[in-house]
Amino acid sequence: MPPEIKALVFDVFGTVVDWRSSVAREAEALGDAKGFQLDWGAFGDDWRARYQPAMEQVRSGRRDWTTLDDLHRENLLALLDQYGIETLTEEEIDDLNRAWHRLDPWPDAVEGLTRLKSRYIIATLSNGNIALMVNLAKYGGLPWDAILGAELARNYKTLPAVYLRSVEALDLMPGECLMVSAHNNDLQGAAACGLRTAFIPRPTEHGPNQTTDLQPDTTYDFIADDLNDLARQLGT
Amino acid sequence: MPPEIKALVFDVFGTVVDWRSSVAREAEALGDAKGFQLDWGAFGDDWRARYQPAMEQVRSGRRDWTTLDDLHRENLLALLDQYGIETLTEEEIDDLNRAWHRLDPWPDAVEGLTRLKSRYIIATLSNGNIALMVNLAKYGGLPWDAILGAELARNYKTLPAVYLRSVEALDLMPGECLMVSAHNNDLQGAAACGLRTAFIPRPTEHGPNQTTDLQPDTTYDFIADDLNDLARQLGT
Repeated sequence: MPPEIKALVFDVFGTVVDWRSSVAREAEALGDAKGFQLDWGAFGDDWRARYQPAMEQVRSGRRDWTTLDDLHRENLLALLDQYGIETLTEEEIDDLNRAWHRLDPWPDAVEGLTRLKSRYIIATLSNGNIALMVNLAKYGGLPWDAILGAELARNYKTLPAVYLRSVEALDLMPGECLMVSAHNNDLQGAAACGLRTAFIPRPTEHGPNQTTDLQPDTTYDFIADDLNDLARQLGT
Repeated sequence: MPPEIKALVFDVFGTVVDWRSSVAREAEALGDAKGFQLDWGAFGDDWRARYQPAMEQVRSGRRDWTTLDDLHRENLLALLDQYGIETLTEEEIDDLNRAWHRLDPWPDAVEGLTRLKSRYIIATLSNGNIALMVNLAKYGGLPWDAILGAELARNYKTLPAVYLRSVEALDLMPGECLMVSAHNNDLQGAAACGLRTAFIPRPTEHGPNQTTDLQPDTTYDFIADDLNDLARQLGT
């Protein structure tokens, strides 16, 4: 018999919060104020496209630990250069970078997490750094018991050390932790470390034409429509 | 003008929770079940007396990072030997050690923290490890935004690195963080790192005959009767 689940650990970007709409909204507001006309959804997509290669520099050991806030800012500078946007002040760039601290939760997230928290430890297991996760939680009312994830391990998912360091911080066995994510590769990384898995599809995370992570790629312990459905399946 | 306070970081044992009564109660319940008659308050005091010397092994570099849960357990084994108690099972020893995960909040703590959380980030900056802090929060309903402190720095207060690592995790300046503690040495350690300070006397933390930390030893930014009074002084 598998061990009792004691903690749920969550991917955040895409699984709990809708980063694309939120980043596009903030970028568009700044663009309007500065007189730029752009496809802001595409701008956000291009920003996000630089996310995995930047983390891979750290994962591969080619670069020392660098927080996601810092990677986001470097990527933003490169993106502004790509789009030929040269008139933002340092303060405006900092503020736009902090759009990642002001992401709207998916409509089911706060209620679902609150229900799950009534019985389980709920913690972030995100690539976002602690300050980013704390500010997101304050912005969106996300009721985490603890902020775990990449910064504890000073490395990025899907490296095993990131999952295992968070499990260790909770003083639990991997099988007592349920990884909740909208991303197949994340769940497969967690499963390889012995964590249980729950897939929540977020078919518009990447906008209306999303082609990835629409379906579970393999078998998971739970597949749920959203966090309220997961709460229901777990009896909370 | 000093920077705006953005986060309150808290000592926990003694400041937020009443460890002595809670540990004595759990030890007494186990003693009753096993037929021991002891002064359980003194037993708790003797357990706690081994706390600073154990942490000093880590602070001094004579010993690698070891969590407080593990130090507590080693100290408990030594204490049981001191008291000549030889009949506890491993499971009973583990459970008694986890009495530190089931400490009652002081009567003002949950309300005061909830008020403070409405305006500020509230986080632990305790020597307790993450699992211990998470379990205490679940047990007592402590509404932390983040669990920071010793485990992030892999060292113990009052070393500067412990305060500074937590401030860094919040991506704040030290002067934007207010350390709240019932312990003068803790506040002086925080102040030396540039944090602001709030002293909350807990005159019965060590029982009815307490002689230490009854008064502030120096000037602090805030001195409050309890966490509700601090919330009032901070306008929440």
